[in-house]
Amino acid sequence: MPTLDRQNDVFLLDLGDGENRFHPDWLASVNAALDEVEQASGPRALVTCATGKFFSNGLDLEWLGTHGEQRHEYVTTVHELFARVLTLPLITVAALQGHTFAAGAMLSLAHDFRVMRADRGFWCLPEADIHIPFTRGMSALIQARLTPQTAHEAMTTAHRYGGQDALAAAIVDRAVDEDAVRRTAVEIAESQAAKAGDTLATIKTRLYASVLDTLRDTDNPLG
Amino acid sequence: MPTLDRQNDVFLLDLGDGENRFHPDWLASVNAALDEVEQASGPRALVTCATGKFFSNGLDLEWLGTHGEQRHEYVTTVHELFARVLTLPLITVAALQGHTFAAGAMLSLAHDFRVMRADRGFWCLPEADIHIPFTRGMSALIQARLTPQTAHEAMTTAHRYGGQDALAAAIVDRAVDEDAVRRTAVEIAESQAAKAGDTLATIKTRLYASVLDTLRDTDNPLG
Amino acid sequence: MPTLDRQNDVFLLDLGDGENRFHPDWLASVNAALDEVEQASGPRALVTCATGKFFSNGLDLEWLGTHGEQRHEYVTTVHELFARVLTLPLITVAALQGHTFAAGAMLSLAHDFRVMRADRGFWCLPEADIHIPFTRGMSALIQARLTPQTAHEAMTTAHRYGGQDALAAAIVDRAVDEDAVRRTAVEIAESQAAKAGDTLATIKTRLYASVLDTLRDTDNPLG
Repeated sequence: MPTLDRQNDVFLLDLGDGENRFHPDWLASVNAALDEVEQASGPRALVTCATGKFFSNGLDLEWLGTHGEQRHEYVTTVHELFARVLTLPLITVAALQGHTFAAGAMLSLAHDFRVMRADRGFWCLPEADIHIPFTRGMSALIQARLTPQTAHEAMTTAHRYGGQDALAAAIVDRAVDEDAVRRTAVEIAESQAAKAGDTLATIKTRLYASVLDTLRDTDNPLG
Repeated sequence: MPTLDRQNDVFLLDLGDGENRFHPDWLASVNAALDEVEQASGPRALVTCATGKFFSNGLDLEWLGTHGEQRHEYVTTVHELFARVLTLPLITVAALQGHTFAAGAMLSLAHDFRVMRADRGFWCLPEADIHIPFTRGMSALIQARLTPQTAHEAMTTAHRYGGQDALAAAIVDRAVDEDAVRRTAVEIAESQAAKAGDTLATIKTRLYASVLDTLRDTDNPLG
Repeated sequence: MPTLDRQNDVFLLDLGDGENRFHPDWLASVNAALDEVEQASGPRALVTCATGKFFSNGLDLEWLGTHGEQRHEYVTTVHELFARVLTLPLITVAALQGHTFAAGAMLSLAHDFRVMRADRGFWCLPEADIHIPFTRGMSALIQARLTPQTAHEAMTTAHRYGGQDALAAAIVDRAVDEDAVRRTAVEIAESQAAKAGDTLATIKTRLYASVLDTLRDTDNPLG
């Protein structure tokens, strides 16, 4: 399960050491951690990381298979997590030490910056292969953070981007050695901790106003 | 006139060996070919190519000059072709062996990917020079596929991009030798043939929802 | 104060030799110059330049501090300047010989092209640091001209881009030696002077239709 730690001005949210799929309990735990980060005051920034082979594999399809009647509510909760991370009143950096797939990849895009391991692990949107179309909210989020060419390739071909490919495609901001992933993310976060506050929240909210509207359209989250 | 051929899972739509302008008969022929591609089932992909010096020079201005009263209907048909190609339920690759101008360039942008000849031929939106402003639908299509800097330069200066320039500007995905244009396009298409289906169509439809709305606004296609 | 000069087909608008902040008198002077450029006929283009260490430092915060009750009207006027430059019926080039900050940086983005001094001076959106969030209109303008990654970094971190960085991030189109900044801008402008006219104005107006709507939403310019 996710854990939250703090080093000086940087909160470290570790998503776990498994596949870190979005089980309802996992989502509740992430949101509780974000409550703590948000309610803190003064200079601060967030690094979201994980331990092991995966950053996150996204939606918990196994749980969803046995709780189909909660699909609408579940997707609404996932959309709200994306919207929340996208507009946190502090700088956020995703440290991608391992595979970052599907909704896990989208969660990484909701952060301000991404640092990826250069030599192993993939960033991938496999939806076209596993026959789960992106919701309109997911589509809006991805398109708001990637160039048209990259968004199109990533979304229609399920291409797996290694660290260097992801850097060249501007999916991530840095690609570094395995042992530098978390450190680099923390350095970026520390350097921006003084930005925390209402101004930054307003800037992000206006930047992504239309994405937020789509993610928060709870009438038809699956549409 | 356009012809349709099939090699294993790849349909080859050859737009012709002239300027391949969008005469109404030519449009009807292209649409009939797309009917066949769409109605086929199973793994499949499309390569749109041409023979000779031109991929396509776009609108048939000569025909339009003598059929001004059909202008509204004609542009609606062209917009609908762009919308249709943009959302085909299979991967599409434009093989640009020759000049790709104006609405011909826009048709290339409606494909998922573009392979261009590296050493000769231009991709160009000459509208600013020939004093035919882009319709709102055309503008939306171009902007949805290019970076802001490239869309602006291409649309306001009528710059002619050779293959290497078009690759650097991310207008095309590959720039290759003349004899490799079609083969490379077919290879990309073959590798993605298994993607054909409803999921891909839904992904593309959501990706370009606002472009499709503008292209299909038949009340004022010329506005 | 701003001055307007003409060399053959190129108008040269010099914003001044100070910080060139947007004082109401300065805005009136710039608008009077643009009236003259717009009302001229035939082939023409515009180079906006400045003299000294600054291109422009943006809003006149000192004046605004003593005229808070005119804030709504002031921002409306600034928005209208951005909208006007964005849709001038001729090609516009900003020659950035010095610091280009905040609304000065936004004004540069309203031009068709930007040439920046390579070795000194910064292009920067410091709003996140000085706690003045971008208005929705400003946000829309910036996002319409930069890639998602660059817009996000520039707007959330107040990063200062030197000439080479700004070129790499596609914020500017050219980065050249100090003594070549104005000359390069004039060369680009001259080469595009024949484009002046209604077609170009229509192309730009459709390209930036949604940005213009937001900039011209005078009910709530500060929102």
